Amino acid sequence: MTAQLWCFGESGNAYKVALMLSLTGTRWQPVFVDFFHGEARGEAFREINPMGEVPVLRLGSRLFTQSGVMLTHLAQVTGQMGGTSPDEADEILRWLFWDNHKFSGQIGTTRFLINFLKPEKRPQEVIAFQQARLKSACSVLNDHLVTRDWMVGAAPTIADLSLCSYLYYPEPFGFSRDDWPDIARWLDRIAGLPGWKHPYDLMPGNPSDRG
Amino acid sequence: MTAQLWCFGESGNAYKVALMLSLTGTRWQPVFVDFFHGEARGEAFREINPMGEVPVLRLGSRLFTQSGVMLTHLAQVTGQMGGTSPDEADEILRWLFWDNHKFSGQIGTTRFLINFLKPEKRPQEVIAFQQARLKSACSVLNDHLVTRDWMVGAAPTIADLSLCSYLYYPEPFGFSRDDWPDIARWLDRIAGLPGWKHPYDLMPGNPSDRG
Repeated sequence: MTAQLWCFGESGNAYKVALMLSLTGTRWQPVFVDFFHGEARGEAFREINPMGEVPVLRLGSRLFTQSGVMLTHLAQVTGQMGGTSPDEADEILRWLFWDNHKFSGQIGTTRFLINFLKPEKRPQEVIAFQQARLKSACSVLNDHLVTRDWMVGAAPTIADLSLCSYLYYPEPFGFSRDDWPDIARWLDRIAGLPGWKHPYDLMPGNPSDRG
Repeated sequence: MTAQLWCFGESGNAYKVALMLSLTGTRWQPVFVDFFHGEARGEAFREINPMGEVPVLRLGSRLFTQSGVMLTHLAQVTGQMGGTSPDEADEILRWLFWDNHKFSGQIGTTRFLINFLKPEKRPQEVIAFQQARLKSACSVLNDHLVTRDWMVGAAPTIADLSLCSYLYYPEPFGFSRDDWPDIARWLDRIAGLPGWKHPYDLMPGNPSDRG
């Protein structure tokens, strides 16, 4: 059985799941979603996901949306990267929610506004507001990593994969490794895991396709 | 054993958990956090929650943060409102993530900017941007409820509690029941559950305290 992931290179939320599939050695294939030509807002895609969001994961007869659900489910079925106890599983879930609410949630929007809108359409007040929130979230994340190699417990988990995803992209959105040394070392640690690949090497589509 | 919930009346994220405690008949007591005088950003509170966020839940010897984790855990330990199958549990988790990322996440910020900042400090471009996103999220939610009484399955679950919470508050943030009839009927349905109370009746502190 081969998993299918509806995705595109620029999607940090899809990358979380693509990375999990790659690191766990799960057989999978990407299904390219032409987000920048509106495919995710079209009727055909809404049949797959009424929320109109990428990624979508097909595992056997089941379709999943929301990267946090996919990561949790993949950790269960592979027995990998889900922590080593119920307490660790709760702690992982805590970081997945925090990531969706306070971290990737801010980054995805900010990165889109800065990089994928025409310059005259960029809402500067919104960008500044989001970047201030992002800075405060980076501070929480960096503090957590000062004394730890991984977000939860003694090994990499889906909490690491969820939180790291946007931070490997080259397009600027207000994060610099120089400002956050403990985050930077943790990103190198994750990138050293067997099976790790850069988002533009793991999923189809990237900004250079659009010239 | 009595649960303790660090909370304040205006916190929609705390209300999600307070409502769960009330609806499940769990014994609990609120611990007031004086958010508007900065208590959540202070050192003492950061000892309880390094993320500096309300709510925090104490159950026996364990402390929980992130409302999504609390709701999931309370559903497990009470055996209530967690759905009736593993598929329903996945679907509930999906909506909890969506709520954090796209719904309550937007509302909490927007409501704060409009109601709890001085008029001259309100960033109008940010408010308009968030309200446009909120409208699009309301549309997803309302569509889902056209043919359903509850978000997942045939009975109320923690997905309903997470999503409904901010919508009972009287302060304006860009949501009107008149615009979303299926959301409105669902809110009445939830408010009819035994044990339901309005946030300002369930938790200490509300805007009138501050004159």
